[in-house]
Amino acid sequence: MGELQQKGQLAKEASYQLAVMTTEEKNKGLLAMADALETAMDDVMAANALDMDAAKANGKPQAFLDRLLLNESRIKDMADGLRAVAELPDPVGHVEEMWLNKDTLQIGKVAVPLGVIGMIYEARPNVTADAAALCLKSGNAVMLRGSGDAIHSNKKIAAVLSAAAEQAGIPAGAIQLVEDTSRETANEMMRLNEYLDVLIPRGGAGLIQNVVKNATVPVIETGVGNCHIYVDETADMQMAVYIIMNGKVQRPGVCNATESLLVHRNIAEKLLPMAAEQLLNAGVELRGCPETMQYISQCSQATVEDYATEFHSLILSVKVVDSMDEAILHIRKYGTKHSEVIVTNDYTNARKFQQMVDAAVVYVNASSRFSDGFQFGFGAEIGISTQKLHARGPMGLKALTSYKYIVNGEGQVRK
Amino acid sequence: MGELQQKGQLAKEASYQLAVMTTEEKNKGLLAMADALETAMDDVMAANALDMDAAKANGKPQAFLDRLLLNESRIKDMADGLRAVAELPDPVGHVEEMWLNKDTLQIGKVAVPLGVIGMIYEARPNVTADAAALCLKSGNAVMLRGSGDAIHSNKKIAAVLSAAAEQAGIPAGAIQLVEDTSRETANEMMRLNEYLDVLIPRGGAGLIQNVVKNATVPVIETGVGNCHIYVDETADMQMAVYIIMNGKVQRPGVCNATESLLVHRNIAEKLLPMAAEQLLNAGVELRGCPETMQYISQCSQATVEDYATEFHSLILSVKVVDSMDEAILHIRKYGTKHSEVIVTNDYTNARKFQQMVDAAVVYVNASSRFSDGFQFGFGAEIGISTQKLHARGPMGLKALTSYKYIVNGEGQVRK
Repeated sequence: MGELQQKGQLAKEASYQLAVMTTEEKNKGLLAMADALETAMDDVMAANALDMDAAKANGKPQAFLDRLLLNESRIKDMADGLRAVAELPDPVGHVEEMWLNKDTLQIGKVAVPLGVIGMIYEARPNVTADAAALCLKSGNAVMLRGSGDAIHSNKKIAAVLSAAAEQAGIPAGAIQLVEDTSRETANEMMRLNEYLDVLIPRGGAGLIQNVVKNATVPVIETGVGNCHIYVDETADMQMAVYIIMNGKVQRPGVCNATESLLVHRNIAEKLLPMAAEQLLNAGVELRGCPETMQYISQCSQATVEDYATEFHSLILSVKVVDSMDEAILHIRKYGTKHSEVIVTNDYTNARKFQQMVDAAVVYVNASSRFSDGFQFGFGAEIGISTQKLHARGPMGLKALTSYKYIVNGEGQVRK
Repeated sequence: MGELQQKGQLAKEASYQLAVMTTEEKNKGLLAMADALETAMDDVMAANALDMDAAKANGKPQAFLDRLLLNESRIKDMADGLRAVAELPDPVGHVEEMWLNKDTLQIGKVAVPLGVIGMIYEARPNVTADAAALCLKSGNAVMLRGSGDAIHSNKKIAAVLSAAAEQAGIPAGAIQLVEDTSRETANEMMRLNEYLDVLIPRGGAGLIQNVVKNATVPVIETGVGNCHIYVDETADMQMAVYIIMNGKVQRPGVCNATESLLVHRNIAEKLLPMAAEQLLNAGVELRGCPETMQYISQCSQATVEDYATEFHSLILSVKVVDSMDEAILHIRKYGTKHSEVIVTNDYTNARKFQQMVDAAVVYVNASSRFSDGFQFGFGAEIGISTQKLHARGPMGLKALTSYKYIVNGEGQVRK
């Protein structure tokens, strides 16, 4: 039996026990995991050093190295993250509705764990601890498949967490790392319907599309964000510049950063130079339509490709539009249904934009950077869903649950 | 451009308009569709006669012919079904929650249509009208792909419905039938991610497994039900027999019928002959474990295959178990996570069974036959989900919606 079959079976077994554990039992596990991670800090850093050396030898870029690196403060953050998850309310067992049907059967809709969750992710070893914590708290077993580039870090972290959890009474198999990081094994995992109830990919567009195309296990698609700001004719110009700057500059490498600016023709002449001044000062490269280039001298011509790109860096595409309708059509064509923003003071347009734009989060007069489980007040985030099935937008613990109906009768049968 | 691409594009366009239509506008379409269907009764029956002739010539069994047949009263029922859907509350626009986050952003979670729904189903032409109605009411466009065996019926019904809808102001493309019923086109439809937001297969296990294995569009798995009744030691015997009879006999061909009976050893000697008398009288064939055979003379020996089979007919597998835990393990091994029943008067066991059994609906002292959208009080049913993602158990209109977050600010940016 292969690694996946073996671990899948164990995870499935564990999931039945996890589903009926009390909040206190699960929290005990989380706190033990946090302590163990801090105790093992030197070992984790030593393992991480092996990954860092290999990555440097392979000439990986600085941003990659930065995501891969674990140091004392980051490991402390991971441990604190585990403790924070212990503090969150347990989503399991919540009765969303309960009613009597016409036969006086009492029917209740009760939140239950999904079962076994598969996570496929890139070289960010902190995801290993984050995902383990969120899955455990929501009563799910988890099979973690991180990138080969982080395999030493992941093995060490997973070993520390699962040993600590087991010692604290969490069933063996609740937290497992897939150690074979080959593409074949990843593909096999995507079709492990017998054991996995859901698959959550976290990473770049390539990884996510690969999972969506190959998986037969139900997938929650996450994270690709080609987010727009449309500045309407009636917008407060200062507010618009403030929101554009925050969306583009505050943290350009993440999925809720703003990638594209659409400006109503009637204010383009005034707004674009104002925005450009601050954007250029912050080192942002501008790629615009011919009309944009009239108002901003330091702006190259945008291609269709530019409008379709999630830059993840200090580049902004810009387009002048005739109307809000044109902006909505542009977003429909190029957007990824993640987060979209209108800046306006027109009540009708604000409402219409929110109704017509098909995205997980649609903002009026606020930065796209708020699309985040913590900012939304969920206390945690397993990812940001860009699909419509099951969960949409920032996903907290509740997104890791399903429900069952419990029906209480006294002998009713169907007529 | 192929049929799927063309229709997919039209459906997507229509879905944007449908998403913002008022309840009144959608109801007007539904009522017009109902009237048109009754007006076209003769044409629909003539088209159906072509399918019936072909099915008879191909030697299809009686049950198949019965599902395929449309007569006056069935067409009238379809029209009344459309009118009933018009009466239901509109799920779109419902704000499930709205709150202020720490930055005093107002965040609302609003129900929205899924977009474009693909339905793949077998030779039941009534599904064409049912699905069209439920998708329209919930603001979704629908691409219907029925079986080739019902193609004449489906083409006529879809043509009548979509023409009537369009004349009543529903956008063209809202209701479309895929006319090419080849396997290749079905497989292409399962990968039509560009246009389809979700795929709902309805039919036998073979159809559903084929969709689950081949689709890259998110799927809601429906309908396979190997449902058990476990009769606990403390059960009221009369109640148990009543529930067993209802589960097995009242309508054996459907997914919420009972297929397997598990009986606690301490009451087997008394319960099994009582149940057998009525079951045998009703023409039920019994296949049991050796101990069952001791108590029921007219009982053949059950194979492992029998325990794993959804008979869809008057056959019941039977097993004597030592304990509720054994029953739960048996259900875990052979169940399909559809509907499971315990008959008991033990409070602790009732609660434990409901907690431990992983199924969409878990009953205490009631028939599995209640797993149905109408019986649950949803007023409609698009299918019964046996997966855990998105929707589980009987699915009404709400299961055909997603949500979006609308966020209202006054210039907030992320710190």
